[in-house]
Formats: sequence, C-alpha cells, structure tokens
Amino acid sequence: MKLVSEAKQIIDDHIEPATLIERTPITRATGRILAGEVKSDIDLPPFNRVSMDGYAVISSDGPGEYEVIEYVPAGAVGAKTVTPGHVTRIMTGAPLPDGADAVIQVEKTGGFVDVGEKAEIKEQIKKGKNFSPKGEDVLMGDVVLTGGVVIEAPEVATLATVGADPVEVFRQPTVAILSTGDELVAPNEKPKPGQIRDSNRFSLFSQVALMGVMPTLLGVARDNEAEVDAKIAEGLSYDFLLVSGGVSAGDKDFVPGALAKSGYDIKLYKVRVKPGKPLVFGVADGGRYVFGVPGNPVSGMVIFELFIKPAIKKRQGLIVTENQRVTATLSEDFKRKKGAREEYIPVKLKWEGNGYTAERLDYHGSAHIHAMTHANALLKIPIDTTEALAGWVGEAIIFR
Amino acid sequence: MKLVSEAKQIIDDHIEPATLIERTPITRATGRILAGEVKSDIDLPPFNRVSMDGYAVISSDGPGEYEVIEYVPAGAVGAKTVTPGHVTRIMTGAPLPDGADAVIQVEKTGGFVDVGEKAEIKEQIKKGKNFSPKGEDVLMGDVVLTGGVVIEAPEVATLATVGADPVEVFRQPTVAILSTGDELVAPNEKPKPGQIRDSNRFSLFSQVALMGVMPTLLGVARDNEAEVDAKIAEGLSYDFLLVSGGVSAGDKDFVPGALAKSGYDIKLYKVRVKPGKPLVFGVADGGRYVFGVPGNPVSGMVIFELFIKPAIKKRQGLIVTENQRVTATLSEDFKRKKGAREEYIPVKLKWEGNGYTAERLDYHGSAHIHAMTHANALLKIPIDTTEALAGWVGEAIIFR
Repeated sequence: MKLVSEAKQIIDDHIEPATLIERTPITRATGRILAGEVKSDIDLPPFNRVSMDGYAVISSDGPGEYEVIEYVPAGAVGAKTVTPGHVTRIMTGAPLPDGADAVIQVEKTGGFVDVGEKAEIKEQIKKGKNFSPKGEDVLMGDVVLTGGVVIEAPEVATLATVGADPVEVFRQPTVAILSTGDELVAPNEKPKPGQIRDSNRFSLFSQVALMGVMPTLLGVARDNEAEVDAKIAEGLSYDFLLVSGGVSAGDKDFVPGALAKSGYDIKLYKVRVKPGKPLVFGVADGGRYVFGVPGNPVSGMVIFELFIKPAIKKRQGLIVTENQRVTATLSEDFKRKKGAREEYIPVKLKWEGNGYTAERLDYHGSAHIHAMTHANALLKIPIDTTEALAGWVGEAIIFR
Repeated sequence: MKLVSEAKQIIDDHIEPATLIERTPITRATGRILAGEVKSDIDLPPFNRVSMDGYAVISSDGPGEYEVIEYVPAGAVGAKTVTPGHVTRIMTGAPLPDGADAVIQVEKTGGFVDVGEKAEIKEQIKKGKNFSPKGEDVLMGDVVLTGGVVIEAPEVATLATVGADPVEVFRQPTVAILSTGDELVAPNEKPKPGQIRDSNRFSLFSQVALMGVMPTLLGVARDNEAEVDAKIAEGLSYDFLLVSGGVSAGDKDFVPGALAKSGYDIKLYKVRVKPGKPLVFGVADGGRYVFGVPGNPVSGMVIFELFIKPAIKKRQGLIVTENQRVTATLSEDFKRKKGAREEYIPVKLKWEGNGYTAERLDYHGSAHIHAMTHANALLKIPIDTTEALAGWVGEAIIFR
C-alpha cells in the first residue's frame, strides 16, 4: 500500500501535460489556461501618456501666463511643438506634445482657457511630472505572460492591452463521471428501505465544474458485470473517467475487472490515506486516465482534492497544480486509535490576525457529507500521529 | 470626499439584497446562490448503514462458527432477523438486519461462505461496530443548508442527499459594462498615435464573470454627449451598469450628466482612495445601480474589488460579501509623499509557514495593468501612513 506522497508521484509520473491548443476570444478566456507565452506588440504606454488634465508645459518656464497654442483631448495627437513661453491644453490619456517636459494639473492653474488665450500657471512643476514615459511599463517584444496560468481579470486586461485577442489556450480535458451500486437512487427519488440517494457523482461533477471543465455524467452502473463493463468502455472515450464506488474488496465489485477489460493498466490500488484507502488509478493508451474512488461521499471529495484535481490541472496545462497549503493551529483535541494512515479531517480555517486556527467540525466519518458544508480546508494528520491536542500546529489544504 | 469605509457604507445602504428566486437542477447549481434554507426529507443515514463488508452478528455470540441465514448486498434489505447463533452475510451500504447489533469485517473471519454454510468468526466484535446508526448525521426535518451561500461540491452533495433537486437559487443580477473615450481602440486593432487599446471593459467583464454572472458588453461610447447618453440609457435596463472612464473632472466627461438624465441619483462622487478617487455610485428606481470607475486599468480593478464586488454579491443574495482579509508582513519598504488617501498596492502574498509576507511588485501606478498579473492581493496603506518599511504589518485583501 502506497504512501500519499508515493501515490501522488505515481499519478504525476503518468499524467501527460496539455498539448492541444485552441484559440478563444478574450471575452471567453476567463478561467481558461494560457497555452504559451504572450509578447507585447507595442510599448506600454505607447507614447508619453498624460496622467492629469491640465497644460503641457516646459517646466523651466515656471509660474506665469502663457499662450495656449493647441488643445489635445484624449485620442488626439498634438500637431504643434511647445516652445518656451507657450503651453498646450491637454487631457488625461493624450500624448505629451513635442517640446513639453511636464504637465501641470488644472487645479494648479487659473483654469482652462481657449486656444489663443493666456493660461495662468500658478506653481512650479518639475520636469517629468504627470505623464508616464513611453515604454515605462512594457517594451515591445517583452514577454508579458507565460503559459500555464489561469486567465483571470489581470491577464484578460493584459491580453487586451498587448493585442492578443483571440488568445491561444489549452484545450480542456474531457471528464466522465460514473457511479456504481445497486443501492443508489437519484436525488429526486425517495429511497426505499436499503437504498440511498447518490451524491458522489454530483459532488464530483461540481468539483470538476469548479475547475472550468464541464463533465459528462454517465449515470449509475448497477452491480452486474455487463452494465459495469459497458459504462466503463463508454468512459474510455474521455480523457478522465471518475468511477465512484465498486473499488473496495467486496464480492460485487466488478469495477477492477471492467477496467482491465477496457485496457486500463492499473498503477495504484490502495493508498495509506483516510478517508479513501481503496483509491484506484489507471492509465490507458492515448492519454486516458481512470480514477476509482470509494463510494463514501467524503472519501470521494477528499480523494478528489488530494489526487484527482492535481492530475486534471496538470492535463489542463497548469503549472501550479496543488491547492494552497497553510499551517494552522488546531483548536480542539483530535485523537484516533490507529496511526497507520495519513488522515485528512474537514476543518474550518479562520484567520485570527496572526495565523490560522483550524476548528474541528461535528464529523462522524466518511459518509457524513453534511459536515463538509461547514469546512473550507482539510487538516492533515500525519502517519503515526494518534493524538493532536488543542494548540497542535499542522498543515491544512485549503479547498475553498 | 468620503472615506473608504463611509463609501462602502453608503453603497451597502442602497443595495437591496436578492429577492427573485428560480429553480435549477443541481447539475447546473454550482456557483449559484442558495435562496433559502434546505431541510432534509429523510434521516441520514436512512437506516443503520453497514460500513464494512462482512457478517452482521449478535456481538455477545463472540468468536465461533455460525450459520449464514441470508445474504444482503447493498441496495437490498434483509428479510430475516438475526438470532443467537446465526449471522447474515452483508455488504457495505446495506441496512443492518434486525436482531444484529454489529458487523464483523470479512478480514476477521474465515472468509465469505454461502447461505446455509457456516461462517467462521475469528474475533470478538463490540456492539455497535461497523455500522452508522440511522439519523446519526442528520434527522428528518433538520435544516442542512441555510440561504445565502455559494453552492459548491459539499452543498451539491448535500442537496442530492436530502432530495433537493431541483433547488431554489437566487436569480443572478444582470450587469452591463460600458467603456468611454475617444482614445480607445479594440484589442485586435493596432493603436494609432494617441490611441490606446481598451482593457478596462475586458477586465471588468472577467471580474464579473468570475462571480458567476455573464455580463453584457455595451461597447465604447465616444466622447460626445449623444453617444454617452444613448449608451447609458441602454445600461439602465440592467441591474448594474459599470461605466469605465469619463468620470473625472475633464471637460469632455459627459458621464455624470448622462447618468442624471437617465434617472440615476448620484450618491457618491469621490472617495479618499488611491487608485480610484473619482468613483461614482448612483441609484435609479427599480433596483438599478451604476458605478462609474476611473479609466486607468488598475484603478478599475481595485475599485471593483473594494466596492463593486461586494455590491454585486449582496444583490446576488450572498451573506458574505467581502473578500478574505489577512494580515501580512511587508517585505520591502513603501514610501509615499502624501497620506491623504487610503492606498491599495498590488502585492504577492506568500505563505511563509507562520504567516503571510506581502512582496511588492514592480508597479508604476494605476496604468500599469501588467503588474497585476503578478499580484494576488491588495495591501492597504492607511490614511496618514506615508512610510511602511520592510517588516511593517498591514492588512491585505486577497483577490485570488
């Protein structure tokens, strides 16, 4: 049975990074993964850009009354060179006219006057003030973005600024989700005795959707070989197949056999993790991956955060594939009888001004999905640690 | 001129929380806002749910050989009562049969045998072991979710479990985005002298899209009264209108007049914040809100995080409307000449094991959008603070 770190390494060794690229308009790029570096096709600012409404001046002229030779609004370009004793009335966003070396804001003048009239400059302004020099932020040809990052607002704005619309992004992987089990009924059905509502396929669906990938639900395979075989064969046409249930040692667990028949080579059977020990990971030709996750809903969610999300992120083309981890101080005692597995318990992380505390939740084990609605992180209890008392400092994986 | 805190209060006083409700299947609910509390229609688990594959036993029988009276897989219900000297072969997920008070896992037995044969129980098992009692997690009628939260995977799983599919969510507000300015060209155009590419409308678009709301782009209004009037009148049909540019004191800023003509009552003109001082906020009948944001791209992004996002979140129906704030230790000196405004500088927050450090970025001011691609937080420099040296501890707003 592999350690968590070993299992993560095995998975990482097999997942191939993204290669397929497509182009998308920047208005549809939010949440997508940038496929490669982006260079600027212009200097930024593209000219000496005025940052205050006022008058473009020769700073050495100093205070006084000077003839306004031109008016340059934003979007226009001055035709005249400013010479000593003259000024150009100018607006924020316009290019600094030739000859001028500063802009004095209108508040430090007698106000705006028309071209041909005299503007009153009330204060001395320093050379270089109130405009941004051409190329100050970015020079033409500079790499402004590197591949493998999620495109969010700052990236969209940068892409717009450097003219990268449409932009090249990685094709998103396809993900299929399958539940297995005779006991499962749909959420809108009332469970009969012995039945329970299936939640795993919906939580997996939501977890994948939050990564910007819209998964396909393959429904529920009942506990018979033919149905499990057929559904798993269907799953093989997706980059990732996530199978919930059917992977423990039970006599009706047809999943391992069906995976083998479909051509998946199983690389991982079990991991020393709680919850989620019977984790299966397999690989088929053509960059197809399968994860078999235990049927208990909290197990499925934890396994997803620890193992499946980083795998999908790598295949999405992301450079950073792990959730953020922070250290946190446990606020209530945690004890367990056995320390053979690395355990992850749902906690509520709270920022306390000088660090995080991890509050324990009313949590009854891996079937207790409701407890997860109060959690925003998983606290790691290392192997061999059977007692972590209030004040213990551990590592937490933030999942929201 | 209002303080940041005063401006936030004025905005909050005017934004009405969400009221309109719609129903959505849980597979489309991720990212939506739950409209009201959700109760469970069943106990969870709905029966004494077996958590190990093995045999249901009467614990006081102890080790020995016992006749298997029945086989109950998951999804089935035992028909027979377990009596002393008898056991039922049972699978994970099945209901504990009447009479039994524990399950012994198969690993602690001689293995599975058929009904009618004798199973070898090798160890003593304690009463109550290896099943989860009916109603342990949730009782029928319990409130499992409260309104005003974002629906993510734990909530989706809980909704599925308690039968709340479809689920009632708040209708999302509508948001329109307008840029203004003669100097703006589209990202796929090459700017001529004096022109710049418009990035604000795309970064605002991305910021809104990341909230789960797909905004409408109204394009660019050129600097003439008729065009600005027409576009703002069009924006009035949306819950929120975000106008970029045209709100400073320049002589070509037609936005304030157009807002008044469209029926927006302006509640805020300027805020003591840097960047973003010329922030406009207005309200029109029927729950229509307008934000006028300065044209510099970093200003727009900061104003969005500080003022617009909380407003949209409140209108979305969210209870928690503010970004997470943490304290962070500045790693390089920050100095400024004037302390009249509360300033927000882009920083890269890094977790250092016992707290966050805030690394300054190469940042030239509010036009330098490229700097934001390296930032994940905004560090607040309070009013009157003109010097914050390395080691200074301040408040950071995490925006990603």
